[in-house]
Amino acid sequence: MHPSPRDLSAGTVLSPEVADALGGGRPVVALESTLLAHGLPRPDNRAAADDVEAAVRAGGAVPATIAVLDGVPHVGLTAAEVDRVCADPDLAKLGVRDLPVAAALGLSGATTVSSTALLAAAAGIGVFATGGLGGVHRQSVDTFDESADLTALSRTSLVVVCAGVKSILDVPATLERLESLSVTVIGYRTTTFPGFYVADSGSTLDWSVADAAEAARVFAARRELAPGAVVVANPLPLDEQLDPALHDRVIAGALTAADEAGVRGKDVTPFVLDHLHRASEGATLAVNVRLVLRNAELAGQIAAALAGVAR
Amino acid sequence: MHPSPRDLSAGTVLSPEVADALGGGRPVVALESTLLAHGLPRPDNRAAADDVEAAVRAGGAVPATIAVLDGVPHVGLTAAEVDRVCADPDLAKLGVRDLPVAAALGLSGATTVSSTALLAAAAGIGVFATGGLGGVHRQSVDTFDESADLTALSRTSLVVVCAGVKSILDVPATLERLESLSVTVIGYRTTTFPGFYVADSGSTLDWSVADAAEAARVFAARRELAPGAVVVANPLPLDEQLDPALHDRVIAGALTAADEAGVRGKDVTPFVLDHLHRASEGATLAVNVRLVLRNAELAGQIAAALAGVAR
Amino acid sequence: MHPSPRDLSAGTVLSPEVADALGGGRPVVALESTLLAHGLPRPDNRAAADDVEAAVRAGGAVPATIAVLDGVPHVGLTAAEVDRVCADPDLAKLGVRDLPVAAALGLSGATTVSSTALLAAAAGIGVFATGGLGGVHRQSVDTFDESADLTALSRTSLVVVCAGVKSILDVPATLERLESLSVTVIGYRTTTFPGFYVADSGSTLDWSVADAAEAARVFAARRELAPGAVVVANPLPLDEQLDPALHDRVIAGALTAADEAGVRGKDVTPFVLDHLHRASEGATLAVNVRLVLRNAELAGQIAAALAGVAR
Ligand SMILES: [Mn+2]
Ligand SMILES: [Mn+2]
Ligand SMILES: [Mn+2]
Repeated sequence: MHPSPRDLSAGTVLSPEVADALGGGRPVVALESTLLAHGLPRPDNRAAADDVEAAVRAGGAVPATIAVLDGVPHVGLTAAEVDRVCADPDLAKLGVRDLPVAAALGLSGATTVSSTALLAAAAGIGVFATGGLGGVHRQSVDTFDESADLTALSRTSLVVVCAGVKSILDVPATLERLESLSVTVIGYRTTTFPGFYVADSGSTLDWSVADAAEAARVFAARRELAPGAVVVANPLPLDEQLDPALHDRVIAGALTAADEAGVRGKDVTPFVLDHLHRASEGATLAVNVRLVLRNAELAGQIAAALAGVAR
Repeated sequence: MHPSPRDLSAGTVLSPEVADALGGGRPVVALESTLLAHGLPRPDNRAAADDVEAAVRAGGAVPATIAVLDGVPHVGLTAAEVDRVCADPDLAKLGVRDLPVAAALGLSGATTVSSTALLAAAAGIGVFATGGLGGVHRQSVDTFDESADLTALSRTSLVVVCAGVKSILDVPATLERLESLSVTVIGYRTTTFPGFYVADSGSTLDWSVADAAEAARVFAARRELAPGAVVVANPLPLDEQLDPALHDRVIAGALTAADEAGVRGKDVTPFVLDHLHRASEGATLAVNVRLVLRNAELAGQIAAALAGVAR
Repeated sequence: MHPSPRDLSAGTVLSPEVADALGGGRPVVALESTLLAHGLPRPDNRAAADDVEAAVRAGGAVPATIAVLDGVPHVGLTAAEVDRVCADPDLAKLGVRDLPVAAALGLSGATTVSSTALLAAAAGIGVFATGGLGGVHRQSVDTFDESADLTALSRTSLVVVCAGVKSILDVPATLERLESLSVTVIGYRTTTFPGFYVADSGSTLDWSVADAAEAARVFAARRELAPGAVVVANPLPLDEQLDPALHDRVIAGALTAADEAGVRGKDVTPFVLDHLHRASEGATLAVNVRLVLRNAELAGQIAAALAGVAR
């Protein structure tokens, strides 16, 4: 059901370490590059890139950061390639539908949740760690703005470990869409759906798993039954979350500012993240890095457990 | 294009009779278990289970009631297994996305339209009988509540015989979504789309078929062309429907009651069904059983006709 | 990844010229028949049919007009078959979900964007020229009316050359849906999304290609990566577009007239096109033919370029 590395389209490059791990059936975790290129400010993003990869290793897996360089998808980056992703201010943001344009025109770009998931699954990687999923935007009843992440996850077989969906989205509507699209969503040791910077989004889940092994077993069953992702929602502990009162205040301020500035579409997320960073005096950024590190480590554990599940 | 029984994921169990029929190319009709576990009150549901299976046989096919027991999908249940599905008050309701969770955690549950369709098609069963499809909920413009049945049917190759969509839904919106998703919808001897308890939902269809053989030929053409279901809408005869005036009154009452009680999501359908049952003094329940029996028999006839269509 | 002509379902007939071209790996462009049967008035549609096929040849490819005759999908029509499609006032309009009904009941009909795309891709044709795509209807928040073209394009691997979406639709909402569904959209020598009769819809695109060869390379990359179409948006030159002031006036008038006449669903497009034709004294019709000819020629060029791209 899953392509082996040999099935990769000619254009994709695997790093030697990732190719070796996949060839040997050892655990690998995919990481997106949009967080590095567009989610965290330069030059702090470079250290975060290393920290996230180290967290995957601490969990027991090989990290495979994914990006497109000069039109070629790379699954697993060398240190020099991570330098480039973190330093280039002009890197495009590439979803699934943008990948073929980048390939044809030789462009470089960071991959989003949708494109990272696609490239990871095509490479035979079963687990992916990120911060928050895209989803249904507030006011989407007027704008129809819904992230391509949702349909991509409904078609792609892999585990996505996240801390919920991006804070600026309509969380209940996004959870409904995930249900309509038959994406499996499970809480990690909770049925509270996390709210990214905060532990509780206000929405609940039907299912939770007690450990990484259970999450791996859910995915092993899913990939035999039907295409589509298993989202593992991993909330921050209460003592590591952003203060909920501060959270509500800065989110509201950021959305108002984006609206007043007429920012739309792909530009909303970076605008809002930047505003939150400044309004919270850096607190959102620190929390964002923290939750990604936690997700990366848990993803490593799930990948390690999955490597022990017989196909 | 269709998996043979040998392609089933290791975990699925076929009953001997179903395995034998599928192996011999004889007609089989899938039946869902949510109707038994959550749609009809105990203990009357047990007799209904037998009656529905008998109706499939009267139509000329072998019934395959589907449920998940201790994490294992069962296609075709023994009498003792039907007992269990009908008696257990704690059975979960499992859509496609819940199946892998049940498998991993060893849970038991009743299958919905989406999961019954998936498991049936995976087992090589081409026809499925149910009462009404899930769909777009009223107020979905606010809640985004749309049943996973719709996208599941857009991806699954089988015939679904029903009496329309569940009464509490937004029927015109559901028909539009079925069109957007390229699900084929045909009326059985009518272009009036049925309204579940009543013969006429107020919406019309573009196509009708004159008999079971035509329905089978539509499906035979569909499965060669593209994935996705053929919905056969089978209205109750006028003299068997619920009185339309009573229908409109109790539906409105049930929706108001659910709203006032703050019932949401998965809990709305059982709440409303229970309210309708009481408000109509049992009439909705009797009509519900009647329409399922009619659908089961027609599904048996279509399956029998399909067995005669060369692949 | 693509079916060869030998994989066609038994029922589809290829014209000798199309079969020969596909067998020899020579460029072919699919054309829809709804434009002929329902978009242009008889008898002028017959000459337009020839002109569009000639434009494909001028671009360097073999035209394959697609229609269903007596239940059988035809890919490539003889002159007599084009006569029939252009002359028959009772021809049905067949989307993907209607094709199996036509096959089972032996009906004839014109194919829409969704069904033309499906049949073309199944025949191994990589490029399709049309006028405008279907999409999200205005007031769809109330009606849920969204064309099946959108999800069909998200699942079908081919290039669709168009002049935007049908004028009566909600263009920004349609572009959002195309993004949510991961359909690649590129402008031909522009990042202005065209407005069908007019060069500028008011919406912009992220990507443009400089020539047919670049468009072919984008598609070659897409079909290796993931199912789904590449939409090439090809605006009319400013001096060939409908006068924008006239455009806005007649569109508003046509929508009001359709609303007042209670026209709905599938009937809206032909009603509005007819109204526009009369209100503009034939100008919309002339522009419609012009843009289709331009799209057909560009599609021919892209198909020719694609034939030179190694698989
Ligand atoms: Mn968006
Ligand atoms: Mn729901
Ligand atoms: Mn429509």
